[in-house]
Amino acid sequence: MLKHNTYFDGKVQSIGFERNGLRATVGVIAPGEYRFNTAAAERMTVLSGQIQANVGDAGWATFPTGTVFEVPANGAFDVRAVGGPAAYLCEFLG
Amino acid sequence: MLKHNTYFDGKVQSIGFERNGLRATVGVIAPGEYRFNTAAAERMTVLSGQIQANVGDAGWATFPTGTVFEVPANGAFDVRAVGGPAAYLCEFLG
Repeated sequence: MLKHNTYFDGKVQSIGFERNGLRATVGVIAPGEYRFNTAAAERMTVLSGQIQANVGDAGWATFPTGTVFEVPANGAFDVRAVGGPAAYLCEFLG
Repeated sequence: MLKHNTYFDGKVQSIGFERNGLRATVGVIAPGEYRFNTAAAERMTVLSGQIQANVGDAGWATFPTGTVFEVPANGAFDVRAVGGPAAYLCEFLG
């Protein structure tokens, strides 16, 4: 029921789950820069630390703990963890 | 740097990280009831879903998303995920 996901040689890892038919993951990003492609649209909530994101190549923005950004379906985004690992909740919107 | 932890046949899983010398994990609890012992004190923040906790055998209390409970060092607590998996942030205070 829970699924462990690992990307970029273990530098991004998450635990996937589903509740009320909606899929989500909680995960951690180690320092570094990573590019992800999306199938469904995603809502990313920063839980700990600080994340910089470049969504759809629109430019980098900084998201501290407690803030949220969304990524469209069939898109791409780059993320960076700033000053140490950062934790996130990713909710799939589609 | 990131560490995947799995407990109770994979029904509780987390990703451990450290920033500014403080250890933390983000994880998910599948439906069921689980008992954990603590070494350091812990602050648990519910990120998604709902958790019931029985800290130090003081009785069960319900913690919805956005709420927090703390567990003393060298103690124990029981947790339940209610109505589906629940996600949490665990910050080690010691």
